[in-house]
Amino acid sequence: MKKLQLSKAFTLVEPGPVVLVTTRDGRKSNIMTISWTMVMDFTPVFGITTGPWNYSFAALKRTKECVVSIPTVDMLDKIVGVGTCSGADTDKFDKFRLTPVEGAYVQAPLIKECLANIECKVLDIITRHNIVVLEGVAAYFDASRKEKRTVHAVGDGTFIVDGRKLNRKKMMSAKLPAGL
Amino acid sequence: MKKLQLSKAFTLVEPGPVVLVTTRDGRKSNIMTISWTMVMDFTPVFGITTGPWNYSFAALKRTKECVVSIPTVDMLDKIVGVGTCSGADTDKFDKFRLTPVEGAYVQAPLIKECLANIECKVLDIITRHNIVVLEGVAAYFDASRKEKRTVHAVGDGTFIVDGRKLNRKKMMSAKLPAGL
Repeated sequence: MKKLQLSKAFTLVEPGPVVLVTTRDGRKSNIMTISWTMVMDFTPVFGITTGPWNYSFAALKRTKECVVSIPTVDMLDKIVGVGTCSGADTDKFDKFRLTPVEGAYVQAPLIKECLANIECKVLDIITRHNIVVLEGVAAYFDASRKEKRTVHAVGDGTFIVDGRKLNRKKMMSAKLPAGL
Repeated sequence: MKKLQLSKAFTLVEPGPVVLVTTRDGRKSNIMTISWTMVMDFTPVFGITTGPWNYSFAALKRTKECVVSIPTVDMLDKIVGVGTCSGADTDKFDKFRLTPVEGAYVQAPLIKECLANIECKVLDIITRHNIVVLEGVAAYFDASRKEKRTVHAVGDGTFIVDGRKLNRKKMMSAKLPAGL
């Protein structure tokens, strides 16, 4: 897992993949599966919708830190598994054989098996809409990984796998931040 | 274009496709391309990030109405075209040969050529984060359309096309709203 330019981190979230969000409260790490995410700026600032119905929310609120990890299609059963059990009674790193890796800026662990990881600080919590606003402070990408296709939750129990990529850089050049 | 159960509308947005958002201010309709979207509830409530940098924002703020349209991959050049010119000096329906269709609940038009359309009311504008919170009030889906693959903006001028679909409904049954 190598460092990724922070200015490119939003491109990991913008396509809308399901992500894993890790937190660490004291000595206990946890993971939640989140599909409700939104890029909010190029800086990079992201929003995620979560709340007390997710066990991780208490840790996120208290520590104001998390890691947003991007899993790939070969991890789909882990993604769904993490999303359908609770950190209240389960050590999800252990149960789903995911490897926590220490980050540089936040206590929450990166996930070694994921394609990418973004260390994040909580910028704001918009309580009335259950939106947690995150700012990425460091990003990592595992270019050595063969499987790079992410999955998009439809919300009905099905998932869309990444297909081919189309390039419109030329048409969009005036609208893109420099250096992408 | 047939009515889609409103309770299923969030499944159009949750996978994270690029969407077209229409507004109507007086007698002038406009369209913007938005990739920064987030499902916030099953009701269906969505967030989009937009602001004064988008010409449509003034109409959206004033009328508190819009339509979220879901285009498909065969429309990619229209999607990028709409996103790289301004309603200030362009009639985008005319320029990109898109057909406005009258909705039932809002003044903003549906787009006939799109796979799906969601008539939306503005529930809230979170000014400090440029988030507009929308509530879908009616949804439509064109099942007769052959091309159903949407596109996901990466943010660097490339787009990921929908690939295959994987089913985990059984694993997720306890977490899904009834009737999906």
